[in-house]
Amino acid sequence: MKKALNYLFDYPNLKLYQYEEAFKFSLDSILLAEFAIIKKNENKILDLCTGNGVIPTILAYKYHKKIWGIELQKEIYDLANLSLKENHLEDLISYICDDVKNIFNYFPIESFDVILCNPPYFPYYDDKHANDNHLKKVARHEIYIDLENIIKIASKLLKTKGKFYLVHLPKRIDEIIIYAQKYHLAVKEIQFIYSKEQIDATIVLVCLVKDGKFGVKIRPFINIQNKTTYQNLFERKG
Amino acid sequence: MKKALNYLFDYPNLKLYQYEEAFKFSLDSILLAEFAIIKKNENKILDLCTGNGVIPTILAYKYHKKIWGIELQKEIYDLANLSLKENHLEDLISYICDDVKNIFNYFPIESFDVILCNPPYFPYYDDKHANDNHLKKVARHEIYIDLENIIKIASKLLKTKGKFYLVHLPKRIDEIIIYAQKYHLAVKEIQFIYSKEQIDATIVLVCLVKDGKFGVKIRPFINIQNKTTYQNLFERKG
Repeated sequence: MKKALNYLFDYPNLKLYQYEEAFKFSLDSILLAEFAIIKKNENKILDLCTGNGVIPTILAYKYHKKIWGIELQKEIYDLANLSLKENHLEDLISYICDDVKNIFNYFPIESFDVILCNPPYFPYYDDKHANDNHLKKVARHEIYIDLENIIKIASKLLKTKGKFYLVHLPKRIDEIIIYAQKYHLAVKEIQFIYSKEQIDATIVLVCLVKDGKFGVKIRPFINIQNKTTYQNLFERKG
Repeated sequence: MKKALNYLFDYPNLKLYQYEEAFKFSLDSILLAEFAIIKKNENKILDLCTGNGVIPTILAYKYHKKIWGIELQKEIYDLANLSLKENHLEDLISYICDDVKNIFNYFPIESFDVILCNPPYFPYYDDKHANDNHLKKVARHEIYIDLENIIKIASKLLKTKGKFYLVHLPKRIDEIIIYAQKYHLAVKEIQFIYSKEQIDATIVLVCLVKDGKFGVKIRPFINIQNKTTYQNLFERKG
């Protein structure tokens, strides 16, 4: 497959390798990286289903903290590592090539302050209803891991009061909330993203807190139709 | 207490009695009445915690269908009945003065097509943290009924595929979804209302369907800051 090295929007000097046909980083990951707030005392950070490493790249650039990422597919993991060198972030980011379900072979439970995930969005029924391209199919469909398992694993990995930032389809917000409750994560913030006026939300960003309290903040609506940058898109006023 | 007869916004000729100091109908009820869609074949309709009858009044005016309402507080129920005569809607609306928990003394289970509710919004701890005025206190605080019980009762009253329209505080959307699942209601639509740009949502409207399927639609954001009418505010495009 043909690799391309592209600038990561308007982040100064950040570049990412992509497969032109098969695997491009998505706006969703950039929004999630911008939505997440990493506090001073939060130093153990992990990105599940990291793909070609968009999220760790942005977070390492913004916060200068050590970030881990785990990606199942070797071809995509290789891209992430290539980008690492290109961006001179080898000291800050480490990628693991494995199934997310094996994460406990690398890290103990309750060891992370912040976890992020842009997971496969679509339930998997059969190949007829999935992408032809294998890399895309695994990245987008719940073949190796589903929403419930991701939430379960994230919760297990988090310290008490640790945060899980998740991006997903708005249509699955009910499942997210139900699984969050099942695995002791409170819904702290929900941010809906609209791609234009008068249509349903197209992306949802969620912040869950381990062993937190009930009481969601539904963040100000954001219409990204005419946005030229995603940096500093999310300003919290409480 | 001093009664006042006020026009119901821009609904032609609709008026409602209110107690000037203690009990005024809220924008929330008007939004809920407008958010609800009553289909041709939906003829059994009930408004829980009906207050002075805003919701039945608007629905009877819009759909010319029979609506029932139940209100616990006699003083407010009396207002609703006064407005009924004023609006000449005696044939379309019937009010019951009783605790919602006694609703099964009046109607059998699984008998309604559509249920609506603008319930008390705030958990009740003690009188120090509640309204001084008794009418307001009972209307706004979960003294006689709480969110879980309302969802449980609504579900029990609904036929299969019947709809429950609920208005509430956005901060309680997680509880709404969790109780909905517990009582076999699927979340079909969520509509957030913002009172201006760049602030968190202030009202949430929800449509739940008995024994429905997963898959929420997050409706287009609505900023009511400069709205002069709430009629036809909610246009569904699928």
